[in-house]
Amino acid sequence: MSGWRLVDPGREWPAPEWAVERWFNTETDRTLAGLRGQVVVIEAFQMLCPGCVSHGLPQAQRIQAVFGKDVQVIGLHTVFEHHEAMTPVSLEAFLHEYRIGFPVGVDTHERPGGMPVTFTRYGMQGTPTIVLIDRAGTARFQMLGRVDDLALGAAIGHLIDESAP
Amino acid sequence: MSGWRLVDPGREWPAPEWAVERWFNTETDRTLAGLRGQVVVIEAFQMLCPGCVSHGLPQAQRIQAVFGKDVQVIGLHTVFEHHEAMTPVSLEAFLHEYRIGFPVGVDTHERPGGMPVTFTRYGMQGTPTIVLIDRAGTARFQMLGRVDDLALGAAIGHLIDESAP
Amino acid sequence: MSGWRLVDPGREWPAPEWAVERWFNTETDRTLAGLRGQVVVIEAFQMLCPGCVSHGLPQAQRIQAVFGKDVQVIGLHTVFEHHEAMTPVSLEAFLHEYRIGFPVGVDTHERPGGMPVTFTRYGMQGTPTIVLIDRAGTARFQMLGRVDDLALGAAIGHLIDESAP
Amino acid sequence: MSGWRLVDPGREWPAPEWAVERWFNTETDRTLAGLRGQVVVIEAFQMLCPGCVSHGLPQAQRIQAVFGKDVQVIGLHTVFEHHEAMTPVSLEAFLHEYRIGFPVGVDTHERPGGMPVTFTRYGMQGTPTIVLIDRAGTARFQMLGRVDDLALGAAIGHLIDESAP
Repeated sequence: MSGWRLVDPGREWPAPEWAVERWFNTETDRTLAGLRGQVVVIEAFQMLCPGCVSHGLPQAQRIQAVFGKDVQVIGLHTVFEHHEAMTPVSLEAFLHEYRIGFPVGVDTHERPGGMPVTFTRYGMQGTPTIVLIDRAGTARFQMLGRVDDLALGAAIGHLIDESAP
Repeated sequence: MSGWRLVDPGREWPAPEWAVERWFNTETDRTLAGLRGQVVVIEAFQMLCPGCVSHGLPQAQRIQAVFGKDVQVIGLHTVFEHHEAMTPVSLEAFLHEYRIGFPVGVDTHERPGGMPVTFTRYGMQGTPTIVLIDRAGTARFQMLGRVDDLALGAAIGHLIDESAP
Repeated sequence: MSGWRLVDPGREWPAPEWAVERWFNTETDRTLAGLRGQVVVIEAFQMLCPGCVSHGLPQAQRIQAVFGKDVQVIGLHTVFEHHEAMTPVSLEAFLHEYRIGFPVGVDTHERPGGMPVTFTRYGMQGTPTIVLIDRAGTARFQMLGRVDDLALGAAIGHLIDESAP
Repeated sequence: MSGWRLVDPGREWPAPEWAVERWFNTETDRTLAGLRGQVVVIEAFQMLCPGCVSHGLPQAQRIQAVFGKDVQVIGLHTVFEHHEAMTPVSLEAFLHEYRIGFPVGVDTHERPGGMPVTFTRYGMQGTPTIVLIDRAGTARFQMLGRVDDLALGAAIGHLIDESAP
């Protein structure tokens, strides 16, 4: 497999359902199960993570702008540090000021100050992390940090072109 | 006067003392009066203002890095919107994540949700706003928005070279 | 068809053979016919075109870096202005200084100072112009100016995944 | 002396007259002697030097735009490599395409393919090199590579504020 193939048959696993305590930018709660049949891009971020602000979130916005209705971009606010600093109240203002338009869910914490539940289920190790999920609800790519737009575009286009299950 | 002269004799006014309810990045509270004899650069910002994060604060960091002990950079957190989203608790995490090293004061509010006191005293109209204050405590330049580095460098160098009062 | 699909069945045409008077960065002359079976990306540029230097050529270098042996990037020096300024002697130094590693052909002129032959055959209207050609030698996308990396990555990935003829 | 003081009493030397074989962007030939009384910024560059195109020349254009008539920016095309690739014919097209508006002189070569005369007189070691010359014709700063805008602005402002000899 070539390095640009972020998505290939050898790397796939069932995408866990997310656990979200509150949604922004959507009138109805979203579930991964409810998005079956669509290609989903999860952008896991923290609002005070500089790499998320400078790179991850702008890339997610470009994905939404370029692929439009062919993908569902889901922001996931996975707070694992400075919990008191990144409450939903602060997040709401952040999303407004940075013109984030896609649905954003607040990852649930089972205990105050702990690790967020979805973050843990996915085995994430930091932010920003991007996850690509196919129409069958299978996770096909996950990476912490900076991902090249050319390779990412190829992967998303590939998933869109796959048949629905 | 040429356009690059941000600082000129025709534009100067007494810099009001600031009103700060809490300081970060300094062990002792700072007052403008106590900085008499030094050139002071105020960077007024809000932590959730995109132009502050992408332009104003990085410029303030460059000023500190380039001019070192010859200027005193003071950050002023002038929250005039989304008050609940930008509390001192959130600001502290922000300063840590963005590696802001200069002293930052939280501008006082006389009533919850109102305009910040120092922001009003200085007649500021938004963020980011930069203010240059000379060794005599006289404000010499104030501007909302983006200021060119070449012209700003000339102005700061000029103030440093002026004699102390 | 969605806007991100640069490549779709409704837009395809036989890619004309190129007419090159001299090659750089390759020991053997390249022909489009000889590349049948491979996905080809043509980056048409002029060495003194600012948009080519700042955007088109860096994008072509990223394509080569990301897709590696799965695509053949071909630079085409299509001089249609300042002919005396952009001779092969100047081009050679330019390619060296800007670390351009893919094969670059000099588009032929039938008469001095005229329009370049390949540029005309392809109906190009300026530089930079990018052309995507599939394994069957069919042109699938051509555009003057700036093309988004996400959409371009999706298109190139799609062409690579198509069966050879 | 602080690091931001590019210009200080301890570092100054007589600026050699330049040797130019041809001028662009000016109707009259310029000499350093003829510019006595003015602050002069020399931007020494080669048109195929990537750092000159991406950084040095844009900075020289900013200096001209910000300081206007208070400085005289002089471009100096100091070709010390790829001589055949960077002839005055190519330079003229380059200046047109990159919208360089300040006067540019072609540094003289005593023998074909040799080192340029002015480049050698100034002891330059590569491109881009910037030189600041005061109203008395004294060189006050010279540096190869990237110079910070804040410090450069302070230095140019300082030279402008010095009295004419």
